[in-house]
Amino acid sequence: MSEWFETLDGIHTRLWSTLGRGVADAKHPARIPTLATVSPDGWPEARTVVLRSADRPTTQLTIHTDITSDKIKSLRANPRAALHIWDRKQALQIRLQTEVTIETGPSARPLWDKIPDHAKQSYGITPPPGTPIPDALDYVKDPDPATFAILHCQITHIDAVHLGEQHRRAAFSQSDDWKGRWLSP
Amino acid sequence: MSEWFETLDGIHTRLWSTLGRGVADAKHPARIPTLATVSPDGWPEARTVVLRSADRPTTQLTIHTDITSDKIKSLRANPRAALHIWDRKQALQIRLQTEVTIETGPSARPLWDKIPDHAKQSYGITPPPGTPIPDALDYVKDPDPATFAILHCQITHIDAVHLGEQHRRAAFSQSDDWKGRWLSP
Repeated sequence: MSEWFETLDGIHTRLWSTLGRGVADAKHPARIPTLATVSPDGWPEARTVVLRSADRPTTQLTIHTDITSDKIKSLRANPRAALHIWDRKQALQIRLQTEVTIETGPSARPLWDKIPDHAKQSYGITPPPGTPIPDALDYVKDPDPATFAILHCQITHIDAVHLGEQHRRAAFSQSDDWKGRWLSP
Repeated sequence: MSEWFETLDGIHTRLWSTLGRGVADAKHPARIPTLATVSPDGWPEARTVVLRSADRPTTQLTIHTDITSDKIKSLRANPRAALHIWDRKQALQIRLQTEVTIETGPSARPLWDKIPDHAKQSYGITPPPGTPIPDALDYVKDPDPATFAILHCQITHIDAVHLGEQHRRAAFSQSDDWKGRWLSP
């Protein structure tokens, strides 16, 4: 497996196939990246999200969220997000810098209509996520297409580190047409 | 196990014991939190780090790093960091907001002297981490106590989410003396 990591093309192919595995396989670590944003008052924030799609031709990822969540407030103030994946089995860290566009409302409705009922439970909660409540279960889940949002993450930069017997680190940027270069790890 | 998550005290105790497990057990997910910072030009950044200590009485965590790494540049510009842990077995997400003090030089030396030789390989690389290099292995590891830094992370806020049969979310803040409150998940 580790020969994948000996060339820039190999790492580039491998990181995209890893993202694809995350989309397809609910048990894969790339399924649940950590999404980092900057809050309106300048704090870094990080939380688990679910990777819904990864498209190499357009270098876009998508994530679904509730439009009332804190990450939306942060992305409206600063539409830049970092995604982080650590795949222990491959000893591979993938770090992505992305510019995020938020889609909600009628254009998101066709996708909403395809989401299974149990998964719709993640969108639409009263009171909204993060609101203080008197007791742990003082909330109601009420699936609501009006709260469903798609985050379109346009990748601008990728940093990949392979912690094999030798450590290798590569960077790929939109600005150099993804041809990649090696970095000191 | 899930009864831990039914009270604020239970969650608070459990999240600290989880941090402690991370320090003690190299295989535990809390061993390798994701550290999010804000770069000098305002981008969120995230990378895996190793949790070295977690002390509930002082609400401090420590991490070791190379003083020439990008995270140091970011923390010098904005000394706030978020730490994120997802413990799948417990279905527990722990998010920590911290204010970071960087310790390096003579006062860090006693700790450096206790680090095993193989682990010292992580500190001191030529050229410094992130420098473009012509080929993947065009770097030299040269352990150097002058590049060793300790990040002292003073926790100011903790957000814990338990995705059990019922979802429960709690927040604990320095500003309310860690007594905690429930949030809508």
